Amino acid sequence: MKPEGRVYVNGIMLDAGEAHVSAFDRGFLYGDGVYETLRVFDGRVFRPNDHLKRLLQSAHLVGMDAPFDSEHFAKMLSLVVTENNLSDAVIRVTVSRGVGGTLGSDLPEQPTVVASFRPRVYPQVLYDEGVVVHVTDFVRDPRFLDPRIKSLNFLPNVLAVMESHRVKAHEAILLTPDGRLSEGASSNLFFVDRDGALWTAADGTVLSGITRDVVLKSARKRRIKVVEEAVSPDDVESMRECFITSTGRGVLPVASVGETAIGSAVPGEKTRLFMEDYRKELLDKKNFQPVIPSMR
Amino acid sequence: MKPEGRVYVNGIMLDAGEAHVSAFDRGFLYGDGVYETLRVFDGRVFRPNDHLKRLLQSAHLVGMDAPFDSEHFAKMLSLVVTENNLSDAVIRVTVSRGVGGTLGSDLPEQPTVVASFRPRVYPQVLYDEGVVVHVTDFVRDPRFLDPRIKSLNFLPNVLAVMESHRVKAHEAILLTPDGRLSEGASSNLFFVDRDGALWTAADGTVLSGITRDVVLKSARKRRIKVVEEAVSPDDVESMRECFITSTGRGVLPVASVGETAIGSAVPGEKTRLFMEDYRKELLDKKNFQPVIPSMR
Repeated sequence: MKPEGRVYVNGIMLDAGEAHVSAFDRGFLYGDGVYETLRVFDGRVFRPNDHLKRLLQSAHLVGMDAPFDSEHFAKMLSLVVTENNLSDAVIRVTVSRGVGGTLGSDLPEQPTVVASFRPRVYPQVLYDEGVVVHVTDFVRDPRFLDPRIKSLNFLPNVLAVMESHRVKAHEAILLTPDGRLSEGASSNLFFVDRDGALWTAADGTVLSGITRDVVLKSARKRRIKVVEEAVSPDDVESMRECFITSTGRGVLPVASVGETAIGSAVPGEKTRLFMEDYRKELLDKKNFQPVIPSMR
Repeated sequence: MKPEGRVYVNGIMLDAGEAHVSAFDRGFLYGDGVYETLRVFDGRVFRPNDHLKRLLQSAHLVGMDAPFDSEHFAKMLSLVVTENNLSDAVIRVTVSRGVGGTLGSDLPEQPTVVASFRPRVYPQVLYDEGVVVHVTDFVRDPRFLDPRIKSLNFLPNVLAVMESHRVKAHEAILLTPDGRLSEGASSNLFFVDRDGALWTAADGTVLSGITRDVVLKSARKRRIKVVEEAVSPDDVESMRECFITSTGRGVLPVASVGETAIGSAVPGEKTRLFMEDYRKELLDKKNFQPVIPSMR
């Protein structure tokens, strides 16, 4: 997130260089907050209500009151899109618990809300040739932090991606407690097996990605069998296709998992279908409620 | 951390209300940073070199360059102590990776450094009567984040303490992956068994607390047997004493673990020895290098 453009901070639009939060903000001190990233396509925000719903779920799961209603949310997004003249970009909405309080008491009543954008940085060649993902030793234990919470505690993910970049991989894969391939540091992970079934870690064990949801719906519509189970490292070699999904990337083919090349063609046949279906969703006006104060 | 007093931010002393960090700071976005809390006693900082050493270790483990040398560190502490006229307090030093970059690349070269204080909020009655600790379901998995890193990813700890306050407990206890009592949300945990041996989770599986270290050294000096192993919930009932340690609390007796009352007297006999030894350390001038730019 390079500081650029106009930024929403607690109701006010500011230049990036002037966009500050208190040094006592619980987001800064403890990572005590939640966030969402939203895709802007052709100047409009993709599935804003799905993101708002997930943001409110995250907030609820950490015991924060709803930081805003849909009208406030839509107004904020609209300001960021219009003041930055965005066409194709990613907006990040960060909501921390606010300023002050002890670790678990005297909690502030006013959250801190920041919304900023970044350009999308995924060149076409990545989609044509696929990327390399790196399997790390980082274990995402749902008993430590509920994976449904999209929280500001992202340091293991940062460290995992730093490690993956050192070995020239595009994304880092985290493990389940029993050593299976769980999800990417900032993406969901999918495989297609030799029988054409789609594999991905089960709901509730990984982040419920909005793009993941698009893929799962598409699979069901196309009567592709879905196995909601994380893949064991031993089974990767036998998989025929692999891809990752995220708000920023959409559906991105994976050419190899570590040293293991996947399948014979990239993108694979099924992956190509999911890429097309995602593209169709991006072009479908019903996914773009107008970002004006009438979303309710 | 109530915003109060004078705060060190990137080399400048500011009033708390003016102490800000960028809304693009990686501390705020990802909890991408580390911190230390230091005890101020009688206007001087307790064991500053131990804390600096641990801070530099934390920074190293997350791949950050040393944010400062001992001279800079001492100067910063000295400013916070003198400008706030501190006698007995806790200083928090927060170091984030700085502003900008993608998740794992183009990382900033300049960290963000903040140092602020809070009063100590542990009334004498807690030490006389002991506290209640609440055993949570939160599992601290060292395979997710190395426990030696004192990081800004503290949301599970916040949630655990919120839960413990709901049941009127003073502190929340986190579990090891195999369900043993690991450490407090912001403290280390100790038990004394019926044979007088001291139990605490092993080095490297929990935070290497500075006060924990004082207790372990004291135990060895007094030839008290130390078992570096986390205690199973089933064995709590048979324990004779329990206490927690932290920079803010020092050595604080625990009267009961959940519903289970511990021992017959609070503080227990051994706990009382450790409290005395810690007090002696607090009164020992060798633990207080002068906080002036000559610490090297």
